[in-house]
Amino acid sequence: MSDTVVVGLDIGGTSTRAAALSLDGVRLGTGRAGGGNPTSHGVEPAAAELLTALRAALVDVDPTRVRAGVIGLAGAGRLLADPHGRAAFDRAWADAGLRCPYAVHGDALVAYASGTAAPNGTVLIAGTGAIAAQVHDLRLDRTADGHGWLLGDAGSGFWLGREAVRRLLSDLDRADPPGELGRRVLAELTGSPEVAARPRATAALVVQAVTRRAPVELARLAPLVVAAARAAEPIALALIREAATLLAESVTRIRPAGTAGPVVLGGGLLTADTPLADAVRAELARRWPDAPLRTAGDGAAGAAWLAARDLPEVIDPAALHALLLPAAT
Amino acid sequence: MSDTVVVGLDIGGTSTRAAALSLDGVRLGTGRAGGGNPTSHGVEPAAAELLTALRAALVDVDPTRVRAGVIGLAGAGRLLADPHGRAAFDRAWADAGLRCPYAVHGDALVAYASGTAAPNGTVLIAGTGAIAAQVHDLRLDRTADGHGWLLGDAGSGFWLGREAVRRLLSDLDRADPPGELGRRVLAELTGSPEVAARPRATAALVVQAVTRRAPVELARLAPLVVAAARAAEPIALALIREAATLLAESVTRIRPAGTAGPVVLGGGLLTADTPLADAVRAELARRWPDAPLRTAGDGAAGAAWLAARDLPEVIDPAALHALLLPAAT
Repeated sequence: MSDTVVVGLDIGGTSTRAAALSLDGVRLGTGRAGGGNPTSHGVEPAAAELLTALRAALVDVDPTRVRAGVIGLAGAGRLLADPHGRAAFDRAWADAGLRCPYAVHGDALVAYASGTAAPNGTVLIAGTGAIAAQVHDLRLDRTADGHGWLLGDAGSGFWLGREAVRRLLSDLDRADPPGELGRRVLAELTGSPEVAARPRATAALVVQAVTRRAPVELARLAPLVVAAARAAEPIALALIREAATLLAESVTRIRPAGTAGPVVLGGGLLTADTPLADAVRAELARRWPDAPLRTAGDGAAGAAWLAARDLPEVIDPAALHALLLPAAT
Repeated sequence: MSDTVVVGLDIGGTSTRAAALSLDGVRLGTGRAGGGNPTSHGVEPAAAELLTALRAALVDVDPTRVRAGVIGLAGAGRLLADPHGRAAFDRAWADAGLRCPYAVHGDALVAYASGTAAPNGTVLIAGTGAIAAQVHDLRLDRTADGHGWLLGDAGSGFWLGREAVRRLLSDLDRADPPGELGRRVLAELTGSPEVAARPRATAALVVQAVTRRAPVELARLAPLVVAAARAAEPIALALIREAATLLAESVTRIRPAGTAGPVVLGGGLLTADTPLADAVRAELARRWPDAPLRTAGDGAAGAAWLAARDLPEVIDPAALHALLLPAAT
């Protein structure tokens, strides 16, 4: 068994995950903590979650064996540009007993690396938001979308939820009875699938129910669209098709013509077995018939692989990838 | 000169306007005060603006001559359902010396009445937001859209501003140089029309500039789109065409097939001589070749006419409309 250990972290809005792996592919420890994005949660709370996840992953590991680490998070650039944020992360790293350096990368690169060892390719992520990024020499190059719910996130969970509500409101405006998806959305938002005698009154209730919450909460309706599409509900199928087209268009904005690298699909809507994942695969295969399609795997292991591949003893990064991330094909 | 006076008020988000008119068409007084929408401004401040506008309009009028009044405002139904709000408006009415009753109607009905005396027809309003409403016997019947910027307002000033930013972000994602409209939007948001060496950095500045303000402030970019469309800028022309189609679709949701009544265009984007007004007229003429197209006029006078037409001495409401609102054709 290799003496060398690498550590990877995948810091997201709702959870922080850490993995400690030996270079022969043994998972020595994993850790999990709360959401730790320094942009949304603040630097100190984010660093505290980082430390919690690290300590859990290292509980059975001598930290002096750890030779490299990578932290993946959304807004990596902002953290690196903020001396206070960087110092807080440095302290957490040292408090976990780690003496090696670490690098910080965008979550999109970590998602990409969790799905492929190819140095050049594309990653497309759809969860609450949506972003596509081109990867060159295992660095994020250009990105498309990721502009947030107000201006972007086309084809994301937010987008699916908002469009489902818009279709419902359109039915109510026309005084047409909502379809199955509309009734489910109505029940979720107002507690009842029934439309009042004056549909305008129901529309007002729907708008109130949405605007009482933060806009991004519209993403909570996305599972209703996914479930309805599974049941072949026509509006849901149309929304899924449109979302897949929008996501593929984001890829088109940045993927150079003739690129041979893989496309890695990440984010909750594309890594699970959803109708949207199927539709996106079909749309990508239509536009890039030769591109291998991959699915993002364990982000913490992907980060650990990114850390390991620069170590002098790693001769064959692709072989190491197969060891550390056996599910990635 | 008729002894009878009617009073009309048009209460909007940015101004409250009042008019006192005699039944022979003499404008006896006008008043203007700050925005007075009770939903957005609070009931008491709204009632205070109402009183200010009323007093200005009545400075040369014996208030006992006033026989009827109408107040038009967005969210009229909410005010009528709120005893506290209704009481505050009653007090302002009495404090202005008025002894006659008054009615409260939606701003869409008042806009309609400022453009036509026809009892049945349609009104389409596009300003910061957008709404279409069907009018039956001079009452608001069904409405379409008006659902606010998060879920609706398709084709509105907010929509034009947001789409202009989206097109700019799409150019930046593709690393294409923005066109003339994109450069103007960029200069407005970031202070410079220049794109950084990494267009992603410029995209981040754009997103930050927008998200620093309230979302509805995106409507402030609509004049850039209108100006660019006047100069035949292709993206602006495409956005104007799309907005016109969306606005016409809102009308289609509620205007019964075979309706012969007029369509009144209201709101700042449709009452001014804008490319959007032209495009909407063309689109409506295509869908309803026989519908007379009218433009909303002085809302306070429209409200005053609505008040007057129920008085027993008013035999010919259409003739009175021509007297009170000579610009409406």
